[in-house]
Amino acid sequence: MTDMLALSVRELARRVAQHALSAEAIVRAYLQQIEAQEPVLHAWQYVDAALALAQARRIDAAGAGGLLAGVPVAVKDMMDTADMPSGYGSPIYAAHRPVTDAAAVAAVRAAGGIVLGKTVTTEFATFQPGPTVNPRSPDLSAPHTPGGSSSGSAAAVAARMAAVAFGTQTAASIVRPASFCGIVGYKPTFGTLSSAGVKPLAPSLDTLGVLTRRVDDAAFFVGVLAQREFAIETASTLRVGICPTPYWDAATPASRQTLIDAAGLLETTGAKIADAVLPHACDDLAEVQAAIMGYEASLAYTPECRTHLSDLSQPFREVLAAGAALGGARYAALQRQAEQGRHALAALFDRFDVLLAPSAAGEAPAGLASTGDPLFSRMWTLLGNPCVNVPVGHGPAGLPIGVTVIGPRWRDEAALSAAARLEQALGAG
Amino acid sequence: MTDMLALSVRELARRVAQHALSAEAIVRAYLQQIEAQEPVLHAWQYVDAALALAQARRIDAAGAGGLLAGVPVAVKDMMDTADMPSGYGSPIYAAHRPVTDAAAVAAVRAAGGIVLGKTVTTEFATFQPGPTVNPRSPDLSAPHTPGGSSSGSAAAVAARMAAVAFGTQTAASIVRPASFCGIVGYKPTFGTLSSAGVKPLAPSLDTLGVLTRRVDDAAFFVGVLAQREFAIETASTLRVGICPTPYWDAATPASRQTLIDAAGLLETTGAKIADAVLPHACDDLAEVQAAIMGYEASLAYTPECRTHLSDLSQPFREVLAAGAALGGARYAALQRQAEQGRHALAALFDRFDVLLAPSAAGEAPAGLASTGDPLFSRMWTLLGNPCVNVPVGHGPAGLPIGVTVIGPRWRDEAALSAAARLEQALGAG
Repeated sequence: MTDMLALSVRELARRVAQHALSAEAIVRAYLQQIEAQEPVLHAWQYVDAALALAQARRIDAAGAGGLLAGVPVAVKDMMDTADMPSGYGSPIYAAHRPVTDAAAVAAVRAAGGIVLGKTVTTEFATFQPGPTVNPRSPDLSAPHTPGGSSSGSAAAVAARMAAVAFGTQTAASIVRPASFCGIVGYKPTFGTLSSAGVKPLAPSLDTLGVLTRRVDDAAFFVGVLAQREFAIETASTLRVGICPTPYWDAATPASRQTLIDAAGLLETTGAKIADAVLPHACDDLAEVQAAIMGYEASLAYTPECRTHLSDLSQPFREVLAAGAALGGARYAALQRQAEQGRHALAALFDRFDVLLAPSAAGEAPAGLASTGDPLFSRMWTLLGNPCVNVPVGHGPAGLPIGVTVIGPRWRDEAALSAAARLEQALGAG
Repeated sequence: MTDMLALSVRELARRVAQHALSAEAIVRAYLQQIEAQEPVLHAWQYVDAALALAQARRIDAAGAGGLLAGVPVAVKDMMDTADMPSGYGSPIYAAHRPVTDAAAVAAVRAAGGIVLGKTVTTEFATFQPGPTVNPRSPDLSAPHTPGGSSSGSAAAVAARMAAVAFGTQTAASIVRPASFCGIVGYKPTFGTLSSAGVKPLAPSLDTLGVLTRRVDDAAFFVGVLAQREFAIETASTLRVGICPTPYWDAATPASRQTLIDAAGLLETTGAKIADAVLPHACDDLAEVQAAIMGYEASLAYTPECRTHLSDLSQPFREVLAAGAALGGARYAALQRQAEQGRHALAALFDRFDVLLAPSAAGEAPAGLASTGDPLFSRMWTLLGNPCVNVPVGHGPAGLPIGVTVIGPRWRDEAALSAAARLEQALGAG
């Protein structure tokens, strides 16, 4: 019997389109998995099994296929859904039901995909954790964080409760949980997927992307939503720049070793490996990202501060207060600095097809009180470059550690191709 | 007796803070003006006089002032308001009442400003006109268009029915109506004001800004919302580049003459005037903007296309169909072209403090069937530079014609200062 949970996104849709598999059977398999895993993992904010099955039967009855026909999708609860609550990780919106789907949710449905439910997000995609457990925790009764803010999406995909899950990244919220949960996280070039209907946190940084088990799943799924096919090329010449980032001192030995191992693996495939020295315009960009994020959040959450201040967590209120204290003149200066960083980094991609950098300081920390440090992704989010986390190594506690493949802006196929090549070299493709 | 409708935004707030004027008296004066003008002009989608007066009385009772205390504000109906309908210019959302204010609306309220109501927008800020009449029409019974998409906001400010009005610009929707209605339109650097709670059209282009009667009103109001004070400097050296744009052939003689007149006026203030030659990377950017706008709109309006297709106008459906036909790979290439344009234009600002260009092909066309051609602003919106329309001349039918002052990104004080200087030279400051 087909292990439906093992099939790729592309293969699921192909089989449904060819009537070799029913959408209903796929959805039933995934709902069973949710039933088995969810009581321990707490990845979901909301699951509507009846609605998912009804949608699947409609797809089967229509018989027309669709590029994502029958693909079971998890939607981060920062995204609007007209037929499910949309709580944004905050009690303020606990009963909120928007009138319109997020654009990307509607695109999934238009292509025949099935929304299984909404996954847990930290409060407004910031730092206050939800209850989600990292499925890779060596002992699930002493859980490690799945990372955040796309906590539930990462856990759902890692535990095979969805074939693909949406994530959003403003600091490190796709790449970090992907690294912590041992899966692929793909943050496309800023602006690739529509932000319409996604609750804003810091609009110049907020990036919609996906978490999947394989690079091709991410490339195919995002390609469908962005109305294109990414040309994945794993055999050509590849110039890889090893980028320790300005934060190398913060990386654990295991994270450092993982980066070195990944470079070695790529070298065995014939890639040319060299050290990449970031231009000085990229100094301090993690700090710049944090300041820009706080300022923009302080503007974006003016309504909630006016009417529901006591329902915001203390840590989030501190982020907003620090952001408001920055002031608009300083913010404008930081945006100029970010633009210079973008321009300087673009020149580095004349010499390298992709960069390779740590995804996080190390493996997922123990406990659920914090989702870990976003430090290693802040710069790439600010710069808007496409990033793909590939799970490569493990830390001393036995949890996964990933590396980030970074490509030039608006050339996502470079990052996806190198990530797919690394995945192949790992034997995981 | 004080003519309250003549006071600047800054002066209104100052007098309310000093208890020299009551917010209620100001709001009553503006509501009277609305009562007198609105039956002919149709600028408002919704006015709630009782609510506005109640808010004014609350400001007066609190007695604490606030940087915008008592300032009567019009909100374009693309922006969410929790206490008023938010229809986005579409029958789909006729009864829609969001749960949360747009961030900028909440910021106005937090600063003591009074939201008078919602102003008419074209359908989803695109091309399908509303009923609004240009207050500068020589014969109001044979009306000219106020321009769009911020049609109601421009008419409301031109007819003194609000001290300041929000507008949004994705192609030319602030600058064009400002030019057609003979007022100031200020589109800040992309991202200056928070887009949270503004219905997206094309997120990489959508820019929130304002329409006012004076440059200082715009600078002061946006400064409050962006938590800064713009340093307006009208006496220093000023290097102005005259930029006919690649679309000069489309400008009417009156629009061309207006640009020449504006340059001459600035020269009398001691500014140095020279011809600015745009870099080749800026060729074709109006076409690039139109393609990017269509593509992003086709993604953003996937939900409405799925569930309410027949409620979309035929012209908007055509925009969406053309956008969807572009494809994501071509879109990515166009975004790269836009980035090159931004970088090349930044270098031109080493030689010029600001550029001066036509705001529109000419005066407002007769009739209400079209809001006019956005051609002359498309490029600047794509590039994200701050733009200020200053009303300078008139066309053969007697309607106003403006010029656009363009500054470097994230240095809005340059564009605002040059615009204020031009306004002074006109004797309109």
